Amino acid sequence: PDVQSSHDERALPIEQVGIRGLRHPLMIRTKAGTFPAVGNFEMDVALPANVKGTHMSRFVALLQKQTEAIDSEVVVKMVREMLPLLNATEGRIQFSYTHFVKKAAPVSSVESLMDYEVTWIAKGKLLATGNVDVELNLRALVPVMSLCPCSKEISEYGAHNQRSHVTMSVALDSQTKMTVEDLVQAAESQASSELWGMLKRPDEKWVTERAYDNPKFVEDLVRDVAGQLKKDERILSLVVEAENFESIHNHSAYAKISLSK
Amino acid sequence: PDVQSSHDERALPIEQVGIRGLRHPLMIRTKAGTFPAVGNFEMDVALPANVKGTHMSRFVALLQKQTEAIDSEVVVKMVREMLPLLNATEGRIQFSYTHFVKKAAPVSSVESLMDYEVTWIAKGKLLATGNVDVELNLRALVPVMSLCPCSKEISEYGAHNQRSHVTMSVALDSQTKMTVEDLVQAAESQASSELWGMLKRPDEKWVTERAYDNPKFVEDLVRDVAGQLKKDERILSLVVEAENFESIHNHSAYAKISLSK
Amino acid sequence: PDVQSSHDERALPIEQVGIRGLRHPLMIRTKAGTFPAVGNFEMDVALPANVKGTHMSRFVALLQKQTEAIDSEVVVKMVREMLPLLNATEGRIQFSYTHFVKKAAPVSSVESLMDYEVTWIAKGKLLATGNVDVELNLRALVPVMSLCPCSKEISEYGAHNQRSHVTMSVALDSQTKMTVEDLVQAAESQASSELWGMLKRPDEKWVTERAYDNPKFVEDLVRDVAGQLKKDERILSLVVEAENFESIHNHSAYAKISLSK
Amino acid sequence: PDVQSSHDERALPIEQVGIRGLRHPLMIRTKAGTFPAVGNFEMDVALPANVKGTHMSRFVALLQKQTEAIDSEVVVKMVREMLPLLNATEGRIQFSYTHFVKKAAPVSSVESLMDYEVTWIAKGKLLATGNVDVELNLRALVPVMSLCPCSKEISEYGAHNQRSHVTMSVALDSQTKMTVEDLVQAAESQASSELWGMLKRPDEKWVTERAYDNPKFVEDLVRDVAGQLKKDERILSLVVEAENFESIHNHSAYAKISLSK
Repeated sequence: PDVQSSHDERALPIEQVGIRGLRHPLMIRTKAGTFPAVGNFEMDVALPANVKGTHMSRFVALLQKQTEAIDSEVVVKMVREMLPLLNATEGRIQFSYTHFVKKAAPVSSVESLMDYEVTWIAKGKLLATGNVDVELNLRALVPVMSLCPCSKEISEYGAHNQRSHVTMSVALDSQTKMTVEDLVQAAESQASSELWGMLKRPDEKWVTERAYDNPKFVEDLVRDVAGQLKKDERILSLVVEAENFESIHNHSAYAKISLSK
Repeated sequence: PDVQSSHDERALPIEQVGIRGLRHPLMIRTKAGTFPAVGNFEMDVALPANVKGTHMSRFVALLQKQTEAIDSEVVVKMVREMLPLLNATEGRIQFSYTHFVKKAAPVSSVESLMDYEVTWIAKGKLLATGNVDVELNLRALVPVMSLCPCSKEISEYGAHNQRSHVTMSVALDSQTKMTVEDLVQAAESQASSELWGMLKRPDEKWVTERAYDNPKFVEDLVRDVAGQLKKDERILSLVVEAENFESIHNHSAYAKISLSK
Repeated sequence: PDVQSSHDERALPIEQVGIRGLRHPLMIRTKAGTFPAVGNFEMDVALPANVKGTHMSRFVALLQKQTEAIDSEVVVKMVREMLPLLNATEGRIQFSYTHFVKKAAPVSSVESLMDYEVTWIAKGKLLATGNVDVELNLRALVPVMSLCPCSKEISEYGAHNQRSHVTMSVALDSQTKMTVEDLVQAAESQASSELWGMLKRPDEKWVTERAYDNPKFVEDLVRDVAGQLKKDERILSLVVEAENFESIHNHSAYAKISLSK
Repeated sequence: PDVQSSHDERALPIEQVGIRGLRHPLMIRTKAGTFPAVGNFEMDVALPANVKGTHMSRFVALLQKQTEAIDSEVVVKMVREMLPLLNATEGRIQFSYTHFVKKAAPVSSVESLMDYEVTWIAKGKLLATGNVDVELNLRALVPVMSLCPCSKEISEYGAHNQRSHVTMSVALDSQTKMTVEDLVQAAESQASSELWGMLKRPDEKWVTERAYDNPKFVEDLVRDVAGQLKKDERILSLVVEAENFESIHNHSAYAKISLSK
């Protein structure tokens, strides 16, 4: 008895139904090569009012057969495949993972990896033509350093600074070749200083002085990052958030800008 | 030198700027009396394009002077007070806390507390008249039990069941007397079974059989809870989500319905 | 049929069995008065090899009837009550909550609350005399500011600083009148600077300069806090940990000292 | 000026000092091949009383040069290398990651991945002979299904069941060839049922009935898993914990057994 496919009387369509918290090992493909990752997946479809349930195991099956290295093109392809598999006209694949970028320290040039939390969201919609239109969103959380302009201004020496999280969510044309590295660079270039996994003594001096020369409020962070992204034609809309884990308080300063183009 | 009030040239208004993760001890007022809680606060305002920064310490000051027991009316009052204090035309106070309800077990009637994660969000907007219009949102996460209809149907005995989270977010008229208890009841009445802090043996028998008699897919949960809330005239719009922490998998089943009225 | 009380053949005593993650609203009693909190409780007992199971609902019942304001004496009393209730010779009550202390800012003296994560652990043991011996442990996580001595030394101006967590776990004589405030003070006095919920401009200047004048490595933090606690005769043994959320990296520096006296 | 190497006067040795929360992409080597993972690393050394500080960047450097696929032998090798690099006589490398195992469903034999949280801890100690003695610990969190014997016994039909976490920490001889898969199997074989990523309808029937035929209290889980591990000669000591996320409550049942051999 196929309980899930039986008729439903409640006249309530379901916007999203599927699975959450499914983890899967991945190789992530970048221009610089591939690296290992673990994806945390959400996969769901829209369910019409008259259908009782979806077929949960088909989401898992689709993911299990995925073996090639992943980039945005593969995600788009998976969404196109998911809709007919689930008999759905709309659906969504979201996955989060830790993205690593090899960076050279500013003075010594010693290399080390920096880690960023990245999420891809691909939403597919079946068109009357039979084609599937895919909307692609990329989100990256970039940890940076912020140094307080007010603290610098009023103090005879020093200035409080701290780790901050800049989170950018951008809608991309699905044809676009926007990379995670491009997005990360927009945030790092606008912070008081960017971070590195490994710094030698001359690098630490450079970072300390760079941040002191370049103070930013949480308001400056979101404005300067949004200003950068606004100029990028590959981005259709954007949300920029910044959270400063204030080193003088036990709470955060927070700011957010949304822009549609 | 008041750095924050200086003129800003970047032509980018900020949607939200303020504080996050500020914890404050509270007494929560309900019809049944008051109980202790710890609120986790977000407070922010909109900042015009030409103003460089907001005054972070004023958010904290506003909260520090709050001493009376809290209910939705107090939150609305706080938002009305926040806007002039921050020279803002729009602003938002959000706080989350653990809400306790004393419940009697279904057979033995032994009493114990159940806990629910609750969030109030009050958004204020300064009108041309000088009044502040407040939009009030209430969110509650209600843990319940779900029993799988498919597992029951296909198995000769037993059926897998598990803890599920039903999360409801509703927009309320700020005049409305909708209580957390009202909202919780909508989710508990539609689950395979509701939960209790303490159950005696006859209660455990009742809950086990009640769930077996009342199987629900994650799709049923969101439809049945949304159906309940839809009938309530105090609710202007609603989002219902359910997540089943499947006892046969290491991932969740998830569903979501949004409705505007 | 009382399944839990039946005889067990596996010859394996159980060190701890009970409940976890039970939340309960509390009033915390301090010298300065009482404040609201939510306790997250773990309660368990030792189970002899020949007994099949414990009686889970009795833990919950013990907590439900707790209505008076809580301090270390009440916890000790609850453990003494728990052992006979569960027919146990050993048992443990642990609860964590957010402890608030009203502090005056260093220059303006403006008052605000600071929050600390606190855990009490009371372990009871039934003696041959029929008395219950109780061992009391107190843990507090104190957020502070640390400023890097190396960064200050090598840079022409500025120095990176950040939020740090100092966690102290101390064993107390159960007769002892050691307060959370005493313990917090030991950590705050040894940091580059302590934190406040609200600071006015002159306070922010003071904190910035104080931290710059008082640089500490993570090694200094644990040594200086351990040195303070070592002198306190109310403390029988101690563990001090510090974690610096480095503002120049995306990982932490960490150190730990354990001392028995 | 090498601040870290200067003399320290406080007469307090530091048990552990190093880094935390450093994430690094890895390939994990198993008998069945390699798979991608992200390790979360803690690396630290003991610091004598007279030395002011350790060299934090050397921990990062050691990890950055690690490129080969990882198994327990590689971890042991890394610890041996770390001690001279940090001028230390004792040190520790701990890393956690998600371990994937391909499993066949019980009836359909359809294959899918299951995920487990695994931690390796290698502690090195420099001997008078100049050799480094390494103690190896392995921890695995295995999600399983538990079905309540009491609920089954007292109810006319059905029985509440839920996801449970069985966590095993074992000390191994560093020569030992104990695999994660061996440890996982000990927990899965003793649960009411093990879990799978993907199940077809006949598999779901099998799992449902298997759990109903095989009820276990949290006490049974820790005793049966400890009983299994006790027989394994490769294990020097063990800690077994189980946490049942009770489907009839909003808190957990918990039990723990420790055994040294």
